[in-house]
Amino acid sequence: MVVFEIIVLGANGGPSEYGTQSFILRPVRAESPALIAVDGGAGMHQLREMLAQKWNDNEDYDELVPSFYEHDREPIEFFVNSKLSIQRGLSRSLLQSLKRHGEHFEDANTTNKAYKLFQGITDYYITHPHFDHISGMVINSPSIYEQENTKKKTIWGLPHTVDALQRHVFNDLMWPDLTAERSEKLKLSYLNSKEVHKCTIFPWDVVPFKVHHGIGVKTGAPVYSTFYIFRDRETKDCLVVCGDVEQDHAGLEESLLEDFWSYVAENIPLLHLKGILVECSCPLSFKPEQLYGHLSPTCLINELSNLNTLYNSSKGLSGLNVIVTHVKTAPAKRDPRLTILEELRFLAQERNLGDLRISIALEGHTLFL
Amino acid sequence: MVVFEIIVLGANGGPSEYGTQSFILRPVRAESPALIAVDGGAGMHQLREMLAQKWNDNEDYDELVPSFYEHDREPIEFFVNSKLSIQRGLSRSLLQSLKRHGEHFEDANTTNKAYKLFQGITDYYITHPHFDHISGMVINSPSIYEQENTKKKTIWGLPHTVDALQRHVFNDLMWPDLTAERSEKLKLSYLNSKEVHKCTIFPWDVVPFKVHHGIGVKTGAPVYSTFYIFRDRETKDCLVVCGDVEQDHAGLEESLLEDFWSYVAENIPLLHLKGILVECSCPLSFKPEQLYGHLSPTCLINELSNLNTLYNSSKGLSGLNVIVTHVKTAPAKRDPRLTILEELRFLAQERNLGDLRISIALEGHTLFL
Repeated sequence: MVVFEIIVLGANGGPSEYGTQSFILRPVRAESPALIAVDGGAGMHQLREMLAQKWNDNEDYDELVPSFYEHDREPIEFFVNSKLSIQRGLSRSLLQSLKRHGEHFEDANTTNKAYKLFQGITDYYITHPHFDHISGMVINSPSIYEQENTKKKTIWGLPHTVDALQRHVFNDLMWPDLTAERSEKLKLSYLNSKEVHKCTIFPWDVVPFKVHHGIGVKTGAPVYSTFYIFRDRETKDCLVVCGDVEQDHAGLEESLLEDFWSYVAENIPLLHLKGILVECSCPLSFKPEQLYGHLSPTCLINELSNLNTLYNSSKGLSGLNVIVTHVKTAPAKRDPRLTILEELRFLAQERNLGDLRISIALEGHTLFL
Repeated sequence: MVVFEIIVLGANGGPSEYGTQSFILRPVRAESPALIAVDGGAGMHQLREMLAQKWNDNEDYDELVPSFYEHDREPIEFFVNSKLSIQRGLSRSLLQSLKRHGEHFEDANTTNKAYKLFQGITDYYITHPHFDHISGMVINSPSIYEQENTKKKTIWGLPHTVDALQRHVFNDLMWPDLTAERSEKLKLSYLNSKEVHKCTIFPWDVVPFKVHHGIGVKTGAPVYSTFYIFRDRETKDCLVVCGDVEQDHAGLEESLLEDFWSYVAENIPLLHLKGILVECSCPLSFKPEQLYGHLSPTCLINELSNLNTLYNSSKGLSGLNVIVTHVKTAPAKRDPRLTILEELRFLAQERNLGDLRISIALEGHTLFL
């Protein structure tokens, strides 16, 4: 059964500035147009672009997606597993819920529609405060003061994220401190690692996990990021959405990734694990010292092998959707997303992980898991 | 004589996150592919988009530009003065200089071309550290470590900008402190208000001026921004590029804008003032208390009237190109850029400013002034 609807606003890992990591989640076929965001590299603009597309584009089997390597556009089937349920643009169900809840929605122009749609986002779950995960959210934030918009927005994160956003973003220097407005329309709120948080708008539990993401260039101090588990309390189905991450290694004080996979295997039956959205920033050709707190295909397959061992299923991880995000743009002959996808598929087979469904997250598309 | 080539990477003033303020400058018909940037709301992605366009698109008289209000696309002539020299995409001269200076440039794919082009940017002049003026620059910054790329980049700004970028951006929390790398490929450098700085790659003087840009929400402390004058030392022609700004008013300690226009009128003969790129964020319908450190059409026309009075020319400001940037996206029936343009033209006529050439800055286009 399909449970999660995921709108990919951005899945780029830089250094190109457009459409960096940002996902919108809602229960599939929900009545309401309520939305939550995981990371905020992109936002209102991308929603407007998606609204401007014809909404039955999912019937277009010859779809081409932007690539800018061998060709400027490549067929969508190069990027996604054939069993992945995906469509270009927004789902019919989301558009219908907007029509039901917004007067004259259908007659509005694309910008006004985008504002209505964007108002639905009441909660952001941020993985870490790097620019490519927050810039859209920050630049979009003054829209909360549009008269028509009465909804408040809350930015959730582990302390390393919330403290950085307060001190270095909403500080009246880098950006107006909108959290200090008397209207309290924008709020920063702490989560705690491994503690279950009840999502305020969906019948979902949200469990954040602190993970490692390299060290500071000057400070040498560890940099942290977050993995989120979203669990539908009714169906018990779960979705994992990961921020940038490095593998556990000897130099680290804690084995945070090992802890995470143990939690997953102990708490989520494999059949209820609907998908993992996870970064794989760099292809195999990158040496470990060039990863700077990210995963290569070898690292990611090692992690999935660890999970496979923990589940110890006769079919491996067959049927599990792994959606790869945050691939870095680089000068190359071939689209690094296609290189990484091929490498991951090869390594997954080599490691006998079963019929894993590996796909690339494509901006401007909706996934159903 | 045309002196300045201006590539508009972004001219949006938020809260939409795409293509926020960023201009690339070079001497028109320069031999070299060297470039400087003023602000960095957009960057490598937008250059890649521009490279992917056919480069003789300027012969397309029926060009439509993205609007997303009355229609998703509107004719370009709605936005620009008929005497403005403008083309979609990059100039033939810039593309030819890349071919001359880059081996196999023509055979490269669009991403590799974009990297080559982006390498040409050696200097950023930042007006202020708000996210919509720096996010592209920050996210693009790790590209300096691409092996092929040997050029260093310097980020210039007044102390309020440089200090904020060091403390709140390149601090190993919000972003890796790339300024601390031993390779010294990324450098932050101070400018001083009203002091002439010699541009390192062009025969240009750069003069920064501190201006006011509202106050902090929580702190109430003044927020500053920068206007830049670029002066070709040979022809004495000048271009003014403005950051976000508010009008001088009673509550401010210094009349920074008054000082600026006096400098302009005293140091730049009107015929040598090739253009002013200036913000006009909000339409006339906004009340003064809704401007938050920005200009409305009334404010901007007041400023231009002050300049007109100082020049005291019989023809007013006839022939002067005013390029309006940073218009805010808002829920409205009509594109706020078109509303603001109409209001500015009406007020300019009412105030007898002469044959001012007012246009909207359009992302993805090159201007010749």
